[in-house]
Amino acid sequence: MKMLINVAETVVADALRGMAAAHPELAIDVENRVIVRRDAPVAGKVALVSGGGSGHEPLHGGFVGPGMLSAACPGEVFTSPVPDQMVRAAAAVDSGAGVLFIVKNYTGDVLNFDMAAELAEDEGVQVAKVLVNDDVAVTDSLFTAGRRGTGATLFVEKIAGAAAEAGMPLERVEAIARRVNENARSFGVALSACTTPAKGSPTFDLPGGELELGIGIHGEPGRERRPMMTSREIADFAVHAVLEDLDPRSPVLVLVNGMGATPLLELYGFNAEVQRVLLERGVPVARTLVGNYVTSLDMAGASVTLCQVDEELLRLWDAPVRTAGLRWGR
Amino acid sequence: MKMLINVAETVVADALRGMAAAHPELAIDVENRVIVRRDAPVAGKVALVSGGGSGHEPLHGGFVGPGMLSAACPGEVFTSPVPDQMVRAAAAVDSGAGVLFIVKNYTGDVLNFDMAAELAEDEGVQVAKVLVNDDVAVTDSLFTAGRRGTGATLFVEKIAGAAAEAGMPLERVEAIARRVNENARSFGVALSACTTPAKGSPTFDLPGGELELGIGIHGEPGRERRPMMTSREIADFAVHAVLEDLDPRSPVLVLVNGMGATPLLELYGFNAEVQRVLLERGVPVARTLVGNYVTSLDMAGASVTLCQVDEELLRLWDAPVRTAGLRWGR
Repeated sequence: MKMLINVAETVVADALRGMAAAHPELAIDVENRVIVRRDAPVAGKVALVSGGGSGHEPLHGGFVGPGMLSAACPGEVFTSPVPDQMVRAAAAVDSGAGVLFIVKNYTGDVLNFDMAAELAEDEGVQVAKVLVNDDVAVTDSLFTAGRRGTGATLFVEKIAGAAAEAGMPLERVEAIARRVNENARSFGVALSACTTPAKGSPTFDLPGGELELGIGIHGEPGRERRPMMTSREIADFAVHAVLEDLDPRSPVLVLVNGMGATPLLELYGFNAEVQRVLLERGVPVARTLVGNYVTSLDMAGASVTLCQVDEELLRLWDAPVRTAGLRWGR
Repeated sequence: MKMLINVAETVVADALRGMAAAHPELAIDVENRVIVRRDAPVAGKVALVSGGGSGHEPLHGGFVGPGMLSAACPGEVFTSPVPDQMVRAAAAVDSGAGVLFIVKNYTGDVLNFDMAAELAEDEGVQVAKVLVNDDVAVTDSLFTAGRRGTGATLFVEKIAGAAAEAGMPLERVEAIARRVNENARSFGVALSACTTPAKGSPTFDLPGGELELGIGIHGEPGRERRPMMTSREIADFAVHAVLEDLDPRSPVLVLVNGMGATPLLELYGFNAEVQRVLLERGVPVARTLVGNYVTSLDMAGASVTLCQVDEELLRLWDAPVRTAGLRWGR
């Protein structure tokens, strides 16, 4: 497998150097692997810190900035960051108003953020945590006890980020983050496996002519394999899987997310089918976002995340955001 | 090759329907294949129209909006749009201040935009044209007489779009667009071929362990094939190729552009190497943009575009833009 890299060992450090060159509005500590918005700490504002294995870009580093994360901690590819990164990040962004850790539900991430929370609290930082576990495909996967955290992470980071930016106290920001996660569900499909730099070959074997339904974001196995399906059939399957578990009584945010190697042309076409199914099922759509946001290196495929929102969550979703990966409003 | 599509015949129409659902701020005529900013025509403002084959998203449709294009005409995948689309687009966006056609230098695009300009002028629309031909890799390729138009298209559309938004008259907007193109050069590499929906198999054959230097955005052949190179070596080759043809006497805008299937993690790492070469060569960098902007379906690889800018061009680059694919400022 060919990659645009030097050697596997320096992939994350190289990427952080390149990101720093492109984004002077971020303070990137390449050695310690912490990405911080340059104006942090912002007086009186609750800080949001997330992180996880690299390979899912723009998540999380691309979501650092006004209206979203205060800092992100990138681990090695598909490997949890270490507590030291999270403690450093918390110390760098805490204004005294406290820090919310946003943690995707993978065993390593959960353990390390737990340990970091204890360490940060020992240093006098008030820490709250929210776990993201939106993936309806499987429970107890290769890397998880319980459900995996996938696309809903974007919704949690954006909406909780807006709440913090609006000056809400830690308990409210935490409650909002939790509400977003509870109201969000995802389902993903892979048309190809992905290849990690360290391994250099596909993380799993997906025969030509088949797709994997219910894939996670690390190439971990999904629900089942089937002969290749059309965009229409995949949308039916994915949206029905989400709606089996979420019965929206208010409009939804829709994220049609590419896994990395699927062209935007196909993602938009897939979105047309997702919207058709939602219309057929009588689910009103408030906003739709299409693109590569929570990726899995060079995996081909897509995921659908729905998040039902009330007026408050929708207003926070619409609030301005200014990050490398997501940006709107003033 | 597996794709997230229904059938090849409906790929472009499906994508336009899905784009319309995600972007209510755009008026998309799916049947006639014209994407227009909803508030067009804007009184007194010069309008910008571009277009080309589909498969390069977010180019061009994703660059329609305040501060950039007024309208875009998507053709079939890797196939020029027809004059009728361009005439419709021009009629929809012309406020009386005239229309600038931004044309990538491919034979079909050039012929069709020429014909459309005549037809639009017959209908009383004042039309100017600018040709984008920034690719230093080859002259007279499979689809081109002269140099191909690639990554610089983004710079032309953004900077000329800002000029139009600032109220400049057609001659000045045209002159600025021309100045951007004259000061911009690109060079791309492919690590894999791309697959068009109609063909269903890779557009060319690139053996494992080799890369193609000087690739275009349609899978047309480049300068040469070599055994796989590191990110460092590729950056040296690409930047030197650009600088052989451009001797910047002022700071440059840098676009490190993914061809579609290369992870953002790798693109950022590649950017670190591009910045290193520029530093070694004494070329000052004004701004850097990294991401998938001028793509070639699911091709893996990247291109580097440099554009030397004076104060006026830099100010126009920094001006606010609000499109699906590029967005900053207010």
